[in-house]
Amino acid sequence: MEVKIGIAPEKAIEGVGRPTDVALGPLRDQVAQAVTRGGGTVVPVQEAEGLVWLLPGGPEPLLEALDAHPGIRWVQLPWAGVEHFKEAFKRPQTFTCAKGSFAKQVSEHALMLALACLRDLVRHARTPSWRPIDPRSLGGLSVTILGGGGIATELVALLQPFGCRIRVLRRSPEPLPGADATLPIGELHAVLPDTDVLVVALALTPETRHIVGAPEFALLPPGAVLVNVARGPHVDTDALMAALDSGALTAAGLDVTDPEPLPADHPLWGYDQVLITSHCADSSDYVARKLCERVTENVRRFGAGEELEGLVDPDTGY
Amino acid sequence: MEVKIGIAPEKAIEGVGRPTDVALGPLRDQVAQAVTRGGGTVVPVQEAEGLVWLLPGGPEPLLEALDAHPGIRWVQLPWAGVEHFKEAFKRPQTFTCAKGSFAKQVSEHALMLALACLRDLVRHARTPSWRPIDPRSLGGLSVTILGGGGIATELVALLQPFGCRIRVLRRSPEPLPGADATLPIGELHAVLPDTDVLVVALALTPETRHIVGAPEFALLPPGAVLVNVARGPHVDTDALMAALDSGALTAAGLDVTDPEPLPADHPLWGYDQVLITSHCADSSDYVARKLCERVTENVRRFGAGEELEGLVDPDTGY
Repeated sequence: MEVKIGIAPEKAIEGVGRPTDVALGPLRDQVAQAVTRGGGTVVPVQEAEGLVWLLPGGPEPLLEALDAHPGIRWVQLPWAGVEHFKEAFKRPQTFTCAKGSFAKQVSEHALMLALACLRDLVRHARTPSWRPIDPRSLGGLSVTILGGGGIATELVALLQPFGCRIRVLRRSPEPLPGADATLPIGELHAVLPDTDVLVVALALTPETRHIVGAPEFALLPPGAVLVNVARGPHVDTDALMAALDSGALTAAGLDVTDPEPLPADHPLWGYDQVLITSHCADSSDYVARKLCERVTENVRRFGAGEELEGLVDPDTGY
Repeated sequence: MEVKIGIAPEKAIEGVGRPTDVALGPLRDQVAQAVTRGGGTVVPVQEAEGLVWLLPGGPEPLLEALDAHPGIRWVQLPWAGVEHFKEAFKRPQTFTCAKGSFAKQVSEHALMLALACLRDLVRHARTPSWRPIDPRSLGGLSVTILGGGGIATELVALLQPFGCRIRVLRRSPEPLPGADATLPIGELHAVLPDTDVLVVALALTPETRHIVGAPEFALLPPGAVLVNVARGPHVDTDALMAALDSGALTAAGLDVTDPEPLPADHPLWGYDQVLITSHCADSSDYVARKLCERVTENVRRFGAGEELEGLVDPDTGY
């Protein structure tokens, strides 16, 4: 049976940057090939049963397309985090995203940010003279990962040789392999006093916005560091700066910020204990490749009537 | 049988910094306790059979002590690298050092330097504005470790989850567990064209001085990065800067430099692709603790007539 797949935009748009933005020029052609590999046929959007959405920005154009073309039953989104598309999830269509796809590179970035925080990399990088600073070792520390998805799974694997005590806080009660404990998100306050490294790696929802703020920083033990590779608004930026100022938090490694992009005049840039990496934990070519793998697999599954990968739960919005 | 152990200096010297320097104040008392734990008795140096050497600087005071006190049969040195004491190894006494003791923290530092090089951390840290830079992943890259001692052993363990292709070049033909290949040092030029990450982690000897210089940089593939956690003179600094200038080398993470300390006006500080961490891969408290563990174990072995840990080979000088 032919699987008719539309791709938005219908034609490549030139001059767009990283695929996470999304880079539409070469990426659209790659996605078209991925659809074909999965047994699909690329058709105009008005004829499509499935739609691969590559347009940057908000959900409005997608909502219009769904209104105009009622034959569309499934939409594949290109991002791992789809909090900005939650309006769309009220619609009856099935939505899939790229969650889990980019996790290997993001978890590697998270590990680097943790090591960089413990070993004072910003000061080393900014000080153009010999200045020994006693490092702290990650080995044996207590690591708490907020979120139990793809990034947590991969990060737990990378942490195994360090002999860390690893706790994963997730919605699902299913134990995450390799973690010493898997706990409900509600246990966050209970574990913070014994958390040396707090890693934020969960989806952004109204419930998880500002999940790390003043009350949480106050519970951390001396020397604790924060790593955020999820979304900026998980962390209350003003509370973060206050915690750094008071010493409640020793250092932070942030791939994401709130606001984002962080304006050039924002005071967070001035902290020598904060490493900011401008939302680039994963690379363009990697994102394109992994997204295409998901498209191929989901087109195949869509054609075979199997459950799709990266299904968005309309209730949770991720 | 009583094991008589001297400690130099005879009394604590106040005001010295890191134990790697060596911090003699609190460290001497800790070492005295470590001697006792190993079944030894701390005695004046002139009565000692074994001597724990904690004085910073060169070998001359030790040579004088050995001349003056012929009862000393064994000397424990506090450093992992003892290239500056090679004059002493001509003497008939048995010498042990701290090689392998600090390897866990140094290997963690090496991993961080590799990740920092691939993910452009210096530019991120030095640029106080939003600037996405496509990262490179360590996952799946080809890593060549020069040296097959404690650091290599620990680093290979940390690299396992990354799925790197790992080659270890060492003097001993014995395969290093976890490495995909263990080769003689002489194979360096053969493996460089397929080396994405070159890690220097071997002892400094006349043979290994400048083991990485212009000919080696010329053989590396595009995008290669260098990590040095051993000794500065392993790398030819002028050739390093030339390789960075020409693009033959993409980035370098250096815990050690030549000269060291690197003077404030040295041009190497100006490179945005070079991370310099001022010889602090291991922390003072960790070094003190691991040194004391070795002292306790070697005093016990010395008393029992067993082979000591960290034996210095007088022929190789490490």
